[in-house]
Amino acid sequence: MSETRSIAVIGGGTIGCGWAVLFAAAGHDAVVVDPDATVAHRLAETWDTARPVLERLGHPVATSRPPVHVARVADLPFVPDFVQEALPERMAIKRTALAELEAAIPATTVIASSSSGLSVTDMQAGMAHPGRMILAHPCNPPYLMPTVEIGTGARTDPALLDGAAAFYEGLGKVVLRLRKEAPGHLVNRLQAALWREAVNIASEGIASVKDAELAVTAGLGARWSVIGPTTIFHLAGGSAGLPKFLDDLGDDVERWWDSLGAPRLDARTRAILTDGMAEIADGRSPEAIAAERDRVMLDLIDCLNANKDPKTGSDTQGGTA
Amino acid sequence: MSETRSIAVIGGGTIGCGWAVLFAAAGHDAVVVDPDATVAHRLAETWDTARPVLERLGHPVATSRPPVHVARVADLPFVPDFVQEALPERMAIKRTALAELEAAIPATTVIASSSSGLSVTDMQAGMAHPGRMILAHPCNPPYLMPTVEIGTGARTDPALLDGAAAFYEGLGKVVLRLRKEAPGHLVNRLQAALWREAVNIASEGIASVKDAELAVTAGLGARWSVIGPTTIFHLAGGSAGLPKFLDDLGDDVERWWDSLGAPRLDARTRAILTDGMAEIADGRSPEAIAAERDRVMLDLIDCLNANKDPKTGSDTQGGTA
Repeated sequence: MSETRSIAVIGGGTIGCGWAVLFAAAGHDAVVVDPDATVAHRLAETWDTARPVLERLGHPVATSRPPVHVARVADLPFVPDFVQEALPERMAIKRTALAELEAAIPATTVIASSSSGLSVTDMQAGMAHPGRMILAHPCNPPYLMPTVEIGTGARTDPALLDGAAAFYEGLGKVVLRLRKEAPGHLVNRLQAALWREAVNIASEGIASVKDAELAVTAGLGARWSVIGPTTIFHLAGGSAGLPKFLDDLGDDVERWWDSLGAPRLDARTRAILTDGMAEIADGRSPEAIAAERDRVMLDLIDCLNANKDPKTGSDTQGGTA
Repeated sequence: MSETRSIAVIGGGTIGCGWAVLFAAAGHDAVVVDPDATVAHRLAETWDTARPVLERLGHPVATSRPPVHVARVADLPFVPDFVQEALPERMAIKRTALAELEAAIPATTVIASSSSGLSVTDMQAGMAHPGRMILAHPCNPPYLMPTVEIGTGARTDPALLDGAAAFYEGLGKVVLRLRKEAPGHLVNRLQAALWREAVNIASEGIASVKDAELAVTAGLGARWSVIGPTTIFHLAGGSAGLPKFLDDLGDDVERWWDSLGAPRLDARTRAILTDGMAEIADGRSPEAIAAERDRVMLDLIDCLNANKDPKTGSDTQGGTA
């Protein structure tokens, strides 16, 4: 990491607190801004939960300053030189907060939105200095999941992206670059596509919600940790790779694509999903499942890092290419 | 394992050889039937590759008999009591082979098709004893990937499925049950859905093929190894779980679904994919990538097994629910 930054995180939900503990653990000064007084408690809890994780990922937690909570931007103990916006996914909320924020910080401070699917161009509509607004969307939890997708809106200064990429890579992140705005960006489009067919499979009675879940957790997930969706079909082509696969089975794939479902989240489908989820949870609370997710994922990320191909591996956390 | 079986594997491609080494390692008598003389070599190579993997998965490899290759069903050294069909994915090829097979084996021997997407009902059309035909589709490679999806065709004796499930579970597999026939069954429908959007993202220029791949390998894959596509959104609902998520963001998800792409594998898109795949491969051959896949996946499966929740974990290989 080249320099200590003074970072304001706007919004103290799960994502905001998750960002703040990562920034703090990496040696930055991190303050979460949220009018909700209970955020101080959430932030302290997140810090306790994340500390061992962040240590194992190689961050200098022992020498870092814990993140702090304040109610308003006016209460910040510094002039921020970077802002991570992590407000609820409602455009009106984001626009109001961005207007207040811009009135209180220098015109050149970069504002990175954590939005999981909204358009930066839409956020820029009412901004005084829209050129400094970028997208930097993490996966949840931000202190553990390796990827951050970064991108621009129509009015963003494109020169900012390289600096943002370097900043997040300095935090150990794998940076994915969006070349064009799209609802759900990259990661959530992929998740939505997978979930849509899982919902369709359950809704159409092809298999249970639990078996659709097991198909992913007991097999596909591990394979997808090593080779992605395109490489899988590259290997299916044998030594001749993807061109042969496309020649031999491209038509079959298109037929499968045409047979995929387009379910709606109507009352009947919601009931199927909720019942199936109860079977999967088997009495475990969301918090217990989340704790298990973090524990096992940390082991998996360690395992992937240890297995990194020396030729293609980067020095960031996360999987092989 | 309750009994040693005499298993004929029909078809000596990657899947057939992959099944045969698993059956053999687990203590069964396994013979691959294929008129192609080079299959003997592939089978020996697969055995060499798979032995250390199978040992690490707990199979009694040291005391097992290596699988054998013969050219024709008439050359089998036993009357098979189980048949695993692993022919190319062409209905005409399967039907011809099934007719020859049925003429040579007892009417009661179960035939399990490895088909990755064809319909058992269609295969049954010309069969003398269609009631014994089931689906048992593995992921590649069958000796390593934990899941097997089993199902019936319209004329299958449904009483066979429990026995088949017990057989594959005895091999350490996680069995997924298909309740209805559908192109691509369960696993390949999920894979096709994910790949369709990855192709769309590249084709529309939202992100590179490589970044769509990294989104999966560097983040989503590890998370999907622990929690599946429905549980992810359950946790996104906080302590109130999926019902709250559906209330808060169900409409957003439907909008994302509506914005997902329906690309075609036309010449332009094939070129984008092939160029992107070359960037991902970075000089590595498909064989080298496959070897890396197997090596890392074995570590990941070990890691998942070691992390199994004592409450929900089964005694099979593979991930947690």
